[in-house]
Amino acid sequence: MPRLSDVIAELDALWPPERAEQWDAVGTVAGYPDAEVSRVLFAVDPVQEIVDEAVRLGADLLVTHHPLYLRGTTTVAAGHFKGRVVHDLIKNDIALHVAHTNADTADPGVSDALAGALDLRVVRPLVPDDSDPSGRRGLGRVCELDHPLTLRDFAEHAAKRLPATAQGIRVAGNPDALVRTVAVSGGSGDSLFDAVRATGADAFLTADLRHHPVSEATQGSPLGLVDAAHWATEWPWCELAAAQLDEISDRHGWDLRVHVSKTVTDPWTAHAASTTTAGAPN
Amino acid sequence: MPRLSDVIAELDALWPPERAEQWDAVGTVAGYPDAEVSRVLFAVDPVQEIVDEAVRLGADLLVTHHPLYLRGTTTVAAGHFKGRVVHDLIKNDIALHVAHTNADTADPGVSDALAGALDLRVVRPLVPDDSDPSGRRGLGRVCELDHPLTLRDFAEHAAKRLPATAQGIRVAGNPDALVRTVAVSGGSGDSLFDAVRATGADAFLTADLRHHPVSEATQGSPLGLVDAAHWATEWPWCELAAAQLDEISDRHGWDLRVHVSKTVTDPWTAHAASTTTAGAPN
Amino acid sequence: MPRLSDVIAELDALWPPERAEQWDAVGTVAGYPDAEVSRVLFAVDPVQEIVDEAVRLGADLLVTHHPLYLRGTTTVAAGHFKGRVVHDLIKNDIALHVAHTNADTADPGVSDALAGALDLRVVRPLVPDDSDPSGRRGLGRVCELDHPLTLRDFAEHAAKRLPATAQGIRVAGNPDALVRTVAVSGGSGDSLFDAVRATGADAFLTADLRHHPVSEATQGSPLGLVDAAHWATEWPWCELAAAQLDEISDRHGWDLRVHVSKTVTDPWTAHAASTTTAGAPN
Amino acid sequence: MPRLSDVIAELDALWPPERAEQWDAVGTVAGYPDAEVSRVLFAVDPVQEIVDEAVRLGADLLVTHHPLYLRGTTTVAAGHFKGRVVHDLIKNDIALHVAHTNADTADPGVSDALAGALDLRVVRPLVPDDSDPSGRRGLGRVCELDHPLTLRDFAEHAAKRLPATAQGIRVAGNPDALVRTVAVSGGSGDSLFDAVRATGADAFLTADLRHHPVSEATQGSPLGLVDAAHWATEWPWCELAAAQLDEISDRHGWDLRVHVSKTVTDPWTAHAASTTTAGAPN
Amino acid sequence: MPRLSDVIAELDALWPPERAEQWDAVGTVAGYPDAEVSRVLFAVDPVQEIVDEAVRLGADLLVTHHPLYLRGTTTVAAGHFKGRVVHDLIKNDIALHVAHTNADTADPGVSDALAGALDLRVVRPLVPDDSDPSGRRGLGRVCELDHPLTLRDFAEHAAKRLPATAQGIRVAGNPDALVRTVAVSGGSGDSLFDAVRATGADAFLTADLRHHPVSEATQGSPLGLVDAAHWATEWPWCELAAAQLDEISDRHGWDLRVHVSKTVTDPWTAHAASTTTAGAPN
Amino acid sequence: MPRLSDVIAELDALWPPERAEQWDAVGTVAGYPDAEVSRVLFAVDPVQEIVDEAVRLGADLLVTHHPLYLRGTTTVAAGHFKGRVVHDLIKNDIALHVAHTNADTADPGVSDALAGALDLRVVRPLVPDDSDPSGRRGLGRVCELDHPLTLRDFAEHAAKRLPATAQGIRVAGNPDALVRTVAVSGGSGDSLFDAVRATGADAFLTADLRHHPVSEATQGSPLGLVDAAHWATEWPWCELAAAQLDEISDRHGWDLRVHVSKTVTDPWTAHAASTTTAGAPN
Repeated sequence: MPRLSDVIAELDALWPPERAEQWDAVGTVAGYPDAEVSRVLFAVDPVQEIVDEAVRLGADLLVTHHPLYLRGTTTVAAGHFKGRVVHDLIKNDIALHVAHTNADTADPGVSDALAGALDLRVVRPLVPDDSDPSGRRGLGRVCELDHPLTLRDFAEHAAKRLPATAQGIRVAGNPDALVRTVAVSGGSGDSLFDAVRATGADAFLTADLRHHPVSEATQGSPLGLVDAAHWATEWPWCELAAAQLDEISDRHGWDLRVHVSKTVTDPWTAHAASTTTAGAPN
Repeated sequence: MPRLSDVIAELDALWPPERAEQWDAVGTVAGYPDAEVSRVLFAVDPVQEIVDEAVRLGADLLVTHHPLYLRGTTTVAAGHFKGRVVHDLIKNDIALHVAHTNADTADPGVSDALAGALDLRVVRPLVPDDSDPSGRRGLGRVCELDHPLTLRDFAEHAAKRLPATAQGIRVAGNPDALVRTVAVSGGSGDSLFDAVRATGADAFLTADLRHHPVSEATQGSPLGLVDAAHWATEWPWCELAAAQLDEISDRHGWDLRVHVSKTVTDPWTAHAASTTTAGAPN
Repeated sequence: MPRLSDVIAELDALWPPERAEQWDAVGTVAGYPDAEVSRVLFAVDPVQEIVDEAVRLGADLLVTHHPLYLRGTTTVAAGHFKGRVVHDLIKNDIALHVAHTNADTADPGVSDALAGALDLRVVRPLVPDDSDPSGRRGLGRVCELDHPLTLRDFAEHAAKRLPATAQGIRVAGNPDALVRTVAVSGGSGDSLFDAVRATGADAFLTADLRHHPVSEATQGSPLGLVDAAHWATEWPWCELAAAQLDEISDRHGWDLRVHVSKTVTDPWTAHAASTTTAGAPN
Repeated sequence: MPRLSDVIAELDALWPPERAEQWDAVGTVAGYPDAEVSRVLFAVDPVQEIVDEAVRLGADLLVTHHPLYLRGTTTVAAGHFKGRVVHDLIKNDIALHVAHTNADTADPGVSDALAGALDLRVVRPLVPDDSDPSGRRGLGRVCELDHPLTLRDFAEHAAKRLPATAQGIRVAGNPDALVRTVAVSGGSGDSLFDAVRATGADAFLTADLRHHPVSEATQGSPLGLVDAAHWATEWPWCELAAAQLDEISDRHGWDLRVHVSKTVTDPWTAHAASTTTAGAPN
Repeated sequence: MPRLSDVIAELDALWPPERAEQWDAVGTVAGYPDAEVSRVLFAVDPVQEIVDEAVRLGADLLVTHHPLYLRGTTTVAAGHFKGRVVHDLIKNDIALHVAHTNADTADPGVSDALAGALDLRVVRPLVPDDSDPSGRRGLGRVCELDHPLTLRDFAEHAAKRLPATAQGIRVAGNPDALVRTVAVSGGSGDSLFDAVRATGADAFLTADLRHHPVSEATQGSPLGLVDAAHWATEWPWCELAAAQLDEISDRHGWDLRVHVSKTVTDPWTAHAASTTTAGAPN
Repeated sequence: MPRLSDVIAELDALWPPERAEQWDAVGTVAGYPDAEVSRVLFAVDPVQEIVDEAVRLGADLLVTHHPLYLRGTTTVAAGHFKGRVVHDLIKNDIALHVAHTNADTADPGVSDALAGALDLRVVRPLVPDDSDPSGRRGLGRVCELDHPLTLRDFAEHAAKRLPATAQGIRVAGNPDALVRTVAVSGGSGDSLFDAVRATGADAFLTADLRHHPVSEATQGSPLGLVDAAHWATEWPWCELAAAQLDEISDRHGWDLRVHVSKTVTDPWTAHAASTTTAGAPN
């Protein structure tokens, strides 16, 4: 049975921590390096429901995409919900490891998994990583559809293919415009609008968009925007990552049990459609 | 017929510019001070569709909630969509005036109009303005419902009472929790979570919420969150403001024609509900 | 007849905007890109007198050296003198374009025109632009006189050759020192003293000098300083630039009418010489 | 005979160092505290010519308005002109003391002396010092003329009454406008334009003005600007200060010999008037 | 048996967290709020040896003066020595609580305990806390000796009375000067030199002094400096704090077992005296 | 007899000022460039005792390692101890020159002299200067011992070989650990811990260490730390530098008299060993 340090060494080879953004906080968050690992759980968010699931499963290692502490903390006291996560992990001998922006830009990475879930053909990174001679690593992906769809139909397609969430999919721009090329970026992509426009993509699928950037983007260009639940855009990566670890386990003869959490940790729990007719009331 | 400077003086009395936030950009953006004003249009966003509507109406003055330029510009050339707004306004003798955070905190202000649209009883400001001895001015409003509703039913109620938009209403937190007191804040309210928790409100209705703040808020407390379209939360203020200017016009015998735009400038144009069963696909 | 965008493309080839300083604000400030252009006016300052002159001339395009807005503005309301310039330009269908530090360092540029007006032989840039392999672009010019002059005589020469202004020419340093080489820089050159000293020039002609830098420069070195009116040092560039545009117009068969404003926009309107004897009163 | 520390204690009572601006560097710059003082020289600038004059006079103390080091130095080596000033002072047993912005705002202070030299009646400070209950201390002075003069005539008057300099007096604004009230501020006053406009003064006399602030001030308001040599606006204070120290010496029976330097340290040494006709050459 | 939250509430009453410095990190670092507490250990440093001691003792709560994490961390993985402390605490059900600058300035606080260990009579705080009307809280203490001692003898006295450490006591300044009043400050006090000089104290006892501040302090004033081991100056507070908690336990009938660690965690483990004669070698 | 400027030119060749750290202040601090130099004194600190010694010796030039003014000053008045140093130097015709971080990293430099005093074999710089192709310049030195010593014995060795000081030598880490390689850095080296660990050295000898960095370093690694008096670690450089100048003097036939001060300017003047038994008192 491998030690935690053995497993982490392989995960770091997949997603080297030094490729994370400066502001990010990736790597191992809890766990003794020489603890034995036999069962691993992958999830998007290191929240209490996921820790509870890991305890029930008997997992020794939880790997999440989002950091528990993005900004530094000086306390892990259990009176705060993050401190309780730390206590419950350590009391139950579960290590926690985070692969965030180093997984976003990996090859294959978060946006490859997202494109795969949407049946899109990846052409190249949206923001290539200059240090990668193969030209395959980088933030986001520029993709092609096999057959053009209207923006509205592309959104319906995404609603069918991504994990179900209460928020669904929001669309900005002309719903009848034809989409042939689409940029995708798992998570919050509103800092990438300039890069998307530079590619000439017809649409951009990402998450967490807000009024002002969306209003300015659609006033200033014909770009279509497709906003999915943040969690739903990153969940496909968990399946990809679990498969990568399975393959590693086989190679080493580690006999790991690797799981992907199906718990929806997107915080939106319900949705109510507008029931008046479109526009302001008379 | 009043001059632009006469009308602005009255608007500045309603929403004194010095009460805007430091980072904000309120006041008159275009127009000769001594131009005559007979027709006024109120709207949330100073976008091209609204300018076109003002031209069609023959308006002399457009009053919007959102600034055209929140950050300073060194050019108004018409090759950019904001410069085109400036050119079209000036060529058509339409002045533009902005009341933004000075209208948010006014008494009555943006969140009063929002509470009114939702049939809520305003109790006090969410973040009181210390310089107001009456204790009525400030950011957001803490409100009471006449009869408790579940969070889900409150969202359905909001979906019925706010102007219709493609995005509808999103809910975070336990949909079955009872809501007796609710804080509301027109526009992007995610910087107000601490203030909301300090009031002990059961729910908070605002706009432009994102994954991480919402996830942390619901992990760390039982607060219910209700996210409406940004535009929909601020549109009720246009009707309030128009009524205030009508009253002023009557008082001065100005005989102004005051309009409220019904054009939906919320950028979300379509929505697709998730069609798989809840949770991640098997 | 060319479109504004056609003319701007040629001006941008003469003075590429990306060669302007980071803090500068150059390029097109007002105008619809597809407006037709038949008459152009060049001037140093985008002030009301110049706009009035452009209106009288029937110009379609005003090109100035100084930006209208060096720092960003969030309003162009006509109650402020700069907003009135914007309104008067747009109402009269006059575009405004600025070439400032990108014209200063051009080849030929502002200091070449200044050297030409003073009959100086340009040797090289004062602060060469490292990205120019020809070694001709850069800030300021180092020049030689055909025959040495005393600093006093050189100032008299400048007073004769530059456009007349109320301020005249001020001299610091020993008036009887011989000047063989002189550095020149149109506009405010007091940040260039170190560069001038490094060239070994005998004198430096520029504008807008102040007590402390001048006192320190003359206490610390034998450099002679010659201070002309800011406007007068930059006006010669207008004639150069107009000739460049005339040539372009001929080449394209555009038949443009190109004018140079003779209005003095230097703000100094009068001068009174000291009438006591030199030194402090007894 | 008093010690240096005795004399400094009296000068600090006239111009308390803690009233200087944060960025300023006032107080004693050189000298042993217990050296005896019998001869004092007042001057505007601590430059070599003034040190040479102090040596010739046999002065024990030089008091200047301008700091020798406004920004900190880590060396006083005599290879630099300021270090040579330090060496020559110490070798010749001459102390140096600076009263700068603490003298500007004193009552009486630098602008009182300037107003006195110009025969103006001081009404109040331009920027009052809030900590002074008498309302007399502060930056600049607002003054009245006994009889209105045109701006041009006021400049001629200033040219007659201030110490003679090569630069003379420059005027911006309408030379024929009538001046009844005038603000004055010794030294560089261009940061005070807003304060001057708030007083409603017809004109502002100060020094070191530059193209852009002057152009904007005269484009945006009818204010007349009068620019004298920096040194000339501050020299009158030397006579005032010397008289104050004479009175102190008499009071204590110190028998000090107090001198005011008549050396012109304004760096402008010559002036050449424009000899073409007004405006740009044809 | 009290809960952790009950005990913390009493500790927070002794040393309110809001009285800590802005840059400090005090309060509970680990532990479930509702865990039961029967045994408490006080120590200066939250290092591994102390955690091991707490485990051996069967302590439920460790209270230290120094924070475990002064700057925020994003990981508590046990591969790092601080993460191992966190793991060992949580695995062994030991909570960690920190009282640092809030204990320094308390009444009684760290410097009171230090003065007590040295038999000094406390007169007042060195830097009083303006918000304390009693004038007793604040940083450091100014003390009097019953009988004057030379600086050398005072250092010998301190060497006898403070817990023994390898470094011993260092003295700067004239060893034969008489000491009547002495300022003391537990921990690193070199930012307090100005405050000490303002009190007129003859000597200052603190820790962690370095060459340049000490050289400048003794060159510029006759102040004597006494530098003890950082740990030794703060250890006396552990005994004081333990006694305070014992009294609280009695008052509530909690029957707590309260211990003070005697483990020396000062990092200096050995000392070698100079064996050449004083001064540089010949 | 050489001029000061001749001697400085040679010293600048040994320790080029441009190789000093950005925050440092090296070079000539006082002196006329053309003064004659016949006698030179080297010392670590430019303090009054050293100036007095230079006066007694009749030195024309004092060369120190530490700057007189590390941060800029705006006054050299003799009421402050540093100003008195300036006055006494200038009155006695003694120039002052500083070689600080440019001497630290020189080849040979401060840490070479320190290694030599300790009989260590220098292997390479601790932090190499990338701009030196020979790989010999840089901060600190990594050294080897001829025969392994325990950390305790290495400290006793250092106590014997370095100039005697009151503080002696402090040791952190296991005193019985064997030391084969040791990094040394004259002066305050606590910013170099990471570099030392990267070399795998067994111990690090430097000065001015404090509780928290030392505690963290020894908790987190087996590195032994040896803390000597700051002055003692830099004094050996004075002998090295004096020998270098002697050689230069011979080469030029200057016949300089070069001295090294033996005055101990380490500020610690006495030491008292702990006299209780090890650990906290019972």
